[in-house]
Amino acid sequence: MAKDKLIGVDLGGTTIKFAILTDTGEIQEKWSVPTNILDNGSHIVPDIIDSINARLDLLKLDRDRIIGIGMGTPGTVNREKGTVEAAYNLNWKNVQHVRDQIQKSTGLNFTMDNDANSAAIGEQWKGAGENNPNVSFITLGTGVGGGIIANGQMVRGVFGAGGEFGHMVVQPGGYLCTCGNHGCLEQYCSATGVVHLARDFADEYEGDSKLKAMLDNGDEVTSKIVFDLAKGGDFLANEVVNKMAYYLGYATAALSNILNPAYVVIGGGVSAAGDFLLDKVKANWTKYAFSSVRSSTKLRLAALGNDAGVIGAASLAREFIEK
Amino acid sequence: MAKDKLIGVDLGGTTIKFAILTDTGEIQEKWSVPTNILDNGSHIVPDIIDSINARLDLLKLDRDRIIGIGMGTPGTVNREKGTVEAAYNLNWKNVQHVRDQIQKSTGLNFTMDNDANSAAIGEQWKGAGENNPNVSFITLGTGVGGGIIANGQMVRGVFGAGGEFGHMVVQPGGYLCTCGNHGCLEQYCSATGVVHLARDFADEYEGDSKLKAMLDNGDEVTSKIVFDLAKGGDFLANEVVNKMAYYLGYATAALSNILNPAYVVIGGGVSAAGDFLLDKVKANWTKYAFSSVRSSTKLRLAALGNDAGVIGAASLAREFIEK
Repeated sequence: MAKDKLIGVDLGGTTIKFAILTDTGEIQEKWSVPTNILDNGSHIVPDIIDSINARLDLLKLDRDRIIGIGMGTPGTVNREKGTVEAAYNLNWKNVQHVRDQIQKSTGLNFTMDNDANSAAIGEQWKGAGENNPNVSFITLGTGVGGGIIANGQMVRGVFGAGGEFGHMVVQPGGYLCTCGNHGCLEQYCSATGVVHLARDFADEYEGDSKLKAMLDNGDEVTSKIVFDLAKGGDFLANEVVNKMAYYLGYATAALSNILNPAYVVIGGGVSAAGDFLLDKVKANWTKYAFSSVRSSTKLRLAALGNDAGVIGAASLAREFIEK
Repeated sequence: MAKDKLIGVDLGGTTIKFAILTDTGEIQEKWSVPTNILDNGSHIVPDIIDSINARLDLLKLDRDRIIGIGMGTPGTVNREKGTVEAAYNLNWKNVQHVRDQIQKSTGLNFTMDNDANSAAIGEQWKGAGENNPNVSFITLGTGVGGGIIANGQMVRGVFGAGGEFGHMVVQPGGYLCTCGNHGCLEQYCSATGVVHLARDFADEYEGDSKLKAMLDNGDEVTSKIVFDLAKGGDFLANEVVNKMAYYLGYATAALSNILNPAYVVIGGGVSAAGDFLLDKVKANWTKYAFSSVRSSTKLRLAALGNDAGVIGAASLAREFIEK
């Protein structure tokens, strides 16, 4: 029987998302289960196995048709050994032998990568990247991560740190980062970074602003609130977004000058601010991009939303397609 | 007869360098001819053809043993069409059909790339890159260029501008660059950039300094003189080198964080300043590199000197090795 199905698993700190796709990347079936991080996350891999086996039985899908399972995961992935460690939001502190367990208990091929690379390949294959062989992806969430596809291949580098855009220093001597350096992109363009900027700007601002009033009042302020207020014309909120867009424009221009991808795709929760954000980022990017890059590389918003994870994960399993 | 020889051609504005190498990259024969840029550079390609044909005849080297010819060239290379244009130091203003002419008149396979990519692959294959599949190369000459090898392949990007490290903006609002932007790396770390920094620093410096005396006196000052004076303890020259090393450390850290290569190799005329420069660059790089990059990526000086060009060019012709 011809193998024509891929399984994608997007393992997150609260939910595990699953999908069955055709080998051309069309989602045919989606489901999810909550992530049980109790007992040092020891239930996670068995839950994944049970969920896949149960679904294949339910669908009466012949296992001979499955090319393989791909998974995106938090933490540090050792692709050679098929292990994950230091995935703190899964309570995985020790090395987890994920591949061996899943392969053994499902009888299916299994491969994985970190969640940022996984989302990057999803957007490159079926999203804003339009299957171009040269795409860079930057994700703005709680932190800032990303992935690079060059010549049709993921650029992982010598230690898997390729595409760690969040730790490009964009403001020497700037905000202290969790990594120990100062002025990393993540400190300005993640959801928490935007709020940090808002607090600093509010301290120095004396004019009228709902954002300032909320911060002074001790209300909870999220990056979404900052963007919504900016769209509504709040002066201070716009100053914050302009600063954030400056850093993001500067950083994406640097990576465009280095890689000259067809597309730099901006995803993650913060990118939900949409064209309002993208236009401001583009204006800054244009100032810092090299002329031939300016005319050949394009900035875009991610297109797959929540599905980037499972699609990208499934895409990883294309390595099992017999040539 | 088994094909086991590569020919490398390093086309420059003053000299065309040639070499015949084994398929494992050992140089067996080297020669060069002056570059005749008269008559819109129309003699250059015929000179290359004649020189290769004459040398093969002289050596009585069987053409069946030649895998192919690779060439590194200035200007904008269209690899698909085998053409070059806008190579101003060759007087090539119009499109030159280089590949077709050379293939036809030598009967040998021919491929080419720009000179920075060519030197990059030379250093990656046989130089400081130790044949690692992930190497970035930055060359500090009259300008600043470079090349990226990731997953064993050259990263050219969508328009061939991949690896254009010289136009990363390292000082927003800084020195005006020939590209129209402000604050490009090239304006601080090329030979001319170092001299520009020296003039600016000298204007503001009142203390004792041979460098300042030379500049005030209207003596010709080169980047080599700045480095030599710095090594000799000249205060102002050291300030200049420190600033240049800051920018180079910052930029190489950014590209290390993006690509996580095994080696960032620093070459070109300015890199002749050696460990004196490298140590200062490393000190800055360490400040801006992400922790996992700091422990896995290494900065190194180029190892091949003038031979990087011909070795890299020859390496391009490895694409003709039959698998």
